[in-house]
Amino acid sequence: MVKIALTGDRPTGKLHLGHYVGSLKQRINLQHEVDRNLVMIADMQALTDNAKNPEKIRNSIMNVALDYLSVGIDPNMSTIFIQSQIPALNELTMIYLNLVTVARLERNPTVKSEIKQKKFDQSVPAGFLIYPVSEAADITAFKANYVPAGDDQEPMIEQTREIVRTFNHTYRKDVLVEPKGIFPPKGQGRIPGIDGSAKMSKSLGNAIYLTDSADEVQRKVMSMYTDPKHVHIDDPGSIEGNVVFTYLNIFDSDVEQVAKLETQYQKGGLGDVKIKKRLIEVLNSFLDPIRQKRADYAKNIDYVEHVLQDGGKKANELANKTLKEMRDAMGINYF
Amino acid sequence: MVKIALTGDRPTGKLHLGHYVGSLKQRINLQHEVDRNLVMIADMQALTDNAKNPEKIRNSIMNVALDYLSVGIDPNMSTIFIQSQIPALNELTMIYLNLVTVARLERNPTVKSEIKQKKFDQSVPAGFLIYPVSEAADITAFKANYVPAGDDQEPMIEQTREIVRTFNHTYRKDVLVEPKGIFPPKGQGRIPGIDGSAKMSKSLGNAIYLTDSADEVQRKVMSMYTDPKHVHIDDPGSIEGNVVFTYLNIFDSDVEQVAKLETQYQKGGLGDVKIKKRLIEVLNSFLDPIRQKRADYAKNIDYVEHVLQDGGKKANELANKTLKEMRDAMGINYF
Repeated sequence: MVKIALTGDRPTGKLHLGHYVGSLKQRINLQHEVDRNLVMIADMQALTDNAKNPEKIRNSIMNVALDYLSVGIDPNMSTIFIQSQIPALNELTMIYLNLVTVARLERNPTVKSEIKQKKFDQSVPAGFLIYPVSEAADITAFKANYVPAGDDQEPMIEQTREIVRTFNHTYRKDVLVEPKGIFPPKGQGRIPGIDGSAKMSKSLGNAIYLTDSADEVQRKVMSMYTDPKHVHIDDPGSIEGNVVFTYLNIFDSDVEQVAKLETQYQKGGLGDVKIKKRLIEVLNSFLDPIRQKRADYAKNIDYVEHVLQDGGKKANELANKTLKEMRDAMGINYF
Repeated sequence: MVKIALTGDRPTGKLHLGHYVGSLKQRINLQHEVDRNLVMIADMQALTDNAKNPEKIRNSIMNVALDYLSVGIDPNMSTIFIQSQIPALNELTMIYLNLVTVARLERNPTVKSEIKQKKFDQSVPAGFLIYPVSEAADITAFKANYVPAGDDQEPMIEQTREIVRTFNHTYRKDVLVEPKGIFPPKGQGRIPGIDGSAKMSKSLGNAIYLTDSADEVQRKVMSMYTDPKHVHIDDPGSIEGNVVFTYLNIFDSDVEQVAKLETQYQKGGLGDVKIKKRLIEVLNSFLDPIRQKRADYAKNIDYVEHVLQDGGKKANELANKTLKEMRDAMGINYF
């Protein structure tokens, strides 16, 4: 079976370490594991709750593309494209909307909690309510059968699977492919913010960006949440919920040394400044080659645009092919 | 000011005298009054509540096109096209969905009453709920400022006007044009069914189709609702709610003769068979040239397809132009 993966991000800002750990890392590996790796910059989806602020989306697109290239998403192995450049996705969405009830959309737990979180109250944009259907269009247009995503995307993938079954059954042809969600193992796939919150997020202001300078990383790590009870160096410290150790465990390749530091910290006698300095070093040596690549690509924006146009061309071919098969199955292929 | 009109029909069956009186007649006149007359066969809209029965829509498209041509919608004066051939309409809809709240859609009185009438209960297709937004896309894509329609379409046009204002205001450019609904004078624009129901409708089985043969017309008129108290020829009869007279008043050009018959009928001494025979004659002489033209076009389906393709090409040019202006205003015109 041909393996086709689709992932993407809403371009509403620069990407941070949370994105890296939660999805970019997997996508880079995926390039070697699947037959086709599609990476979508979801600007149309970003508009569903940013309709009044399209500049933010416009400005973020190039940032996200640069982030992709600099972490190692390779245009020779991946198709990187912008969602709004693929008109067929809108038509797929319109077709699927007739196969999904309003009640079903209103039951989607992710959308429900996002509506609460975004404080839409009584003014939920219709485009936001239906965005799971638009995601179904994104996934199915490319016949993606692998959808690596965060846990919160599980209801979206289930909705997509339902739409695929309904479409194929209604139009009596197996045109569409049911995707499989690939979720990170429990506890992984998410890193805490520098303030100790469960999730690193731009809106919480607790993120370390892939584009942060060495100085910014230093400043952020020095302000990082550790163990509030660890006041004096000699006090025993806790590593549970201690963000510095959480990060060291993820980014420090010297596993033995980290284990040793943990033991010492728990016993007492290891200061926060010392472990933070180590983390600063580790993060900066992780980010340095990414920064270097980003600076190179930023000098060559024409190339980045070329990558996106090229990806768009490929994505259009695939999506138009699926749309044609769908129209044939539905019998709305008049001429 | 350039006058652009858009009208259309859902292709869910053949057109009948109700369509003729309610809209086709006005459209034929409109051809001489506006600068651009667009006539759309709304197959995508028909799918919103016929997703499981696309054959019906497919089969109706050619019938509706033949009906148009045979009543005198002239491809040299009108742009006749199929909605699903214009991909930009889907993108416009997706953009507008972000500017309309779910609550606003749920308040639409026409959609509310249709949901009741169609007995959707808890399973309203999402595509059906949002079809007013899709209509806004149809109207605005062509910058139509004249939308002749039935009274029940007033909420749709109001919704379109709201979207136009929101779009232009949000993206700080007067890209879109507010349409004006053109509604028939009170009491006109609707004819009763042959059974006396207020509305002629396919689903009520009380319609005379433009394609009915002379024999079918005869059979239907002979079964027509008149005055149930008018039992004997000599009894005085009522013309109020008497479908035969309603039709004679619309289709019989000999106004004086109709007035005379009315007086005689009310006084007594005029039988139902006599007035029905007159109506049969009147309707058949109205339908004869339409039938003749239809038979001619039906022999030349290639020409009809050519008309639809040609119209689609023109409609695509116009809609793509509007879409480009919209994307420019929104700033999502990356390359």
